[in-house]
Amino acid sequence: MTATPLGPGPEFDRIRAIGSALGDAAAGLGDDCAFLPDGWCVSTDLTVEGVHFLREWLAPEEIGWRAAAAALSDLAAVGASAEAVVVGLSARREEPTEVLAAVMRGVGRVARSVGARVVGGDLTGGAELGLAVTVMGRTDRPVHRSGARAGDEIWVTGTLGGARAALEAWRLGQEPSPGARELFARPLPMIAAGQWLARAGATAMIDVSDGLAGELHHLAAASGVGLAVELERLPLGDGVVEMAERVREAAPAFAARGGEDYQLLVTLPAAVNPTLPELTRIGVVTGEPGVRLTLRGAVLTLTGFDHFR
Amino acid sequence: MTATPLGPGPEFDRIRAIGSALGDAAAGLGDDCAFLPDGWCVSTDLTVEGVHFLREWLAPEEIGWRAAAAALSDLAAVGASAEAVVVGLSARREEPTEVLAAVMRGVGRVARSVGARVVGGDLTGGAELGLAVTVMGRTDRPVHRSGARAGDEIWVTGTLGGARAALEAWRLGQEPSPGARELFARPLPMIAAGQWLARAGATAMIDVSDGLAGELHHLAAASGVGLAVELERLPLGDGVVEMAERVREAAPAFAARGGEDYQLLVTLPAAVNPTLPELTRIGVVTGEPGVRLTLRGAVLTLTGFDHFR
Repeated sequence: MTATPLGPGPEFDRIRAIGSALGDAAAGLGDDCAFLPDGWCVSTDLTVEGVHFLREWLAPEEIGWRAAAAALSDLAAVGASAEAVVVGLSARREEPTEVLAAVMRGVGRVARSVGARVVGGDLTGGAELGLAVTVMGRTDRPVHRSGARAGDEIWVTGTLGGARAALEAWRLGQEPSPGARELFARPLPMIAAGQWLARAGATAMIDVSDGLAGELHHLAAASGVGLAVELERLPLGDGVVEMAERVREAAPAFAARGGEDYQLLVTLPAAVNPTLPELTRIGVVTGEPGVRLTLRGAVLTLTGFDHFR
Repeated sequence: MTATPLGPGPEFDRIRAIGSALGDAAAGLGDDCAFLPDGWCVSTDLTVEGVHFLREWLAPEEIGWRAAAAALSDLAAVGASAEAVVVGLSARREEPTEVLAAVMRGVGRVARSVGARVVGGDLTGGAELGLAVTVMGRTDRPVHRSGARAGDEIWVTGTLGGARAALEAWRLGQEPSPGARELFARPLPMIAAGQWLARAGATAMIDVSDGLAGELHHLAAASGVGLAVELERLPLGDGVVEMAERVREAAPAFAARGGEDYQLLVTLPAAVNPTLPELTRIGVVTGEPGVRLTLRGAVLTLTGFDHFR
C-alpha cells in the first residue's frame, strides 16, 4: 500500500490499522480522492444522524444537501470536476417516503449546482438516517496533499468557523444566526475554486472538513514540510465572533478548531498572485517540519475534531 | 430522468418516489450499475447489521467479504470488469479496531479475488455496523436489463436458495449446513461469468440479490417481455432440500424466493449454446408480458424479499 502519511489522532490510528489489514488489496489511500485511469477520481463520505447532525437542526432537504456537499468537497480538494454521484440511503422502516424524497432532492440540487448528476443508489433499513455519498469527477492534473514546498504561501477559500458557530448555538439550546445556520446546512462545494487553484499552480490542497488545525497537520505530514499560520489572518464565518465569546475562546482559535466548513486549504508558490475572490492568505510553508500556529505572535496548540475521540 | 421500469413492491415504490424527487438531477437509474464515459460503470450497495446479517452469524472478515461481494455482483450483472472499491464503514465508537480491520480484510480479499483494489474509504461513528460499498468497473459493451427478446432462453449461474437455507437455519436456532453457510457468508462475485456471458451475446442480465422471483419481474418489466420459468429446473444450493422441507415449502419455490445468492439471471438468444460451467437453462422469453412460474406444470405466484415490507 502506498499511503500518504496522516496527522495524529485516534480516528487516523484506526484508519492506519485498517489500511495495514488491506495489504496489497489497497492502493493509494490517504488523499482526499482516489485516482483511477482516464483522469477519473472518486471519494466516499458518510453522514449519520446523531453523529453528523440532529434531525431538529436540519430540514430533510438540507440533510441531503450537506451530506452530498461534504462528499463533493473531496473532489474540489484535488482540483477535479464533479460528474456523478451515487447515494446509499439507510432509514428506519417507518420513515416517510416524503422525507427520503426530500433528502434526495437536496442531494440532487447540490449535485446539479456543480454540474454533477445522481446516477444511482441503494436504499435499505437501518436504526438511523444515514447517507453514504460517493462522488466521481475528473481531472488531468490532480493536486495532492504532498506537494507543498518551503517558500509557498498558505491560503484558504471562503470563511472558517461558521459551521461550528451553528453547532455551538444548538448545543447551548439557542437558534444559530441565519448566516451561521446556512454555512452549516448548505455548504457550497468549492469545485470551481478547486479547478481554478489547480490551474493556477497549487502545490498542495486539502478540504477543511475536520477543522483547519487538523488539516494543517495532514498537509504538513504528507508534504514533509512545516506550516506556519497566523491565526489572526483567518477569515471568520458568520456568528463566529459571538459564539467564540460565549464559549470563551479567541475567535480565530474557535474558527481553526471548527470542522465541516468544507473550504479549501491550499499552498501556492509565492510568485502566484491569485485573483480568485474570497481567497485569504494565512501563512507560509517552511522547511522545519510540523505545524506552527500563532495568534498575534503567541504560539497556540489546537487539534481538530475526531469522530472517534 | 430515464429510468428503467422496476417490478412491483413497496421498496421499489419508494425508489420510484425518490427518483421523481431528483428530476433532472438524476440520470439512468434502474440498471444494476450506472454508466459513465470511457466505459466506466459504478454501483453502490449498503449492508447493515440487523438488516442484512446478525453478528452471531458471521465472522468480521465474512461481513466484509459478503458486503463487497454483493456490490461487486452489480458489476457482474452488466458484464463489467471490477477495478476499484471504496468503502464507507460506520461502527459504534467502542467497536475494537481489530474487528474493523478484519471487516476490511474481507473486503480486500474478495476485491482482489476478482482483480479489483480498495482505493479509498470513510470511517464514522454510528448505532450499528454498516458498510457502504461502492464499486467501479469497466465494459465496452454493457448488458442491460432491457434487451430480452421473445424466443431467447433464460439461464442462471451457480445455484439458488443456499443463502436462504442458511438464514432459515439461523432463524430456527440451528447451525446451517457448512455448504449453505459458505454460500451466505462468502458469495463469489460472478465477474468472470458476467464478462463471458456479455461476450457470448447476452441480451439482458441482472443479479439475483433479492430472490429469483423478484428479479424476473424486474427483467420482464425492463424488457417489456414475458418470462416463463419452469421451477423444477432450478439448480438448488446446498441445504435447500432439507430447509425447504423444514419450512414446508417445495424446494424449487424455496430457492426462487430466497435472496442474496448473487448469481446471474441472463437471457441468451436460443442459437447460443453456452459452454460456461455451472450455467442452467430455466425457461424461455415469451411475447406475453409478465412472469409465469410453473412447477411441474402448475402455475405458482411468488415474490422476492423486500427490506421495506
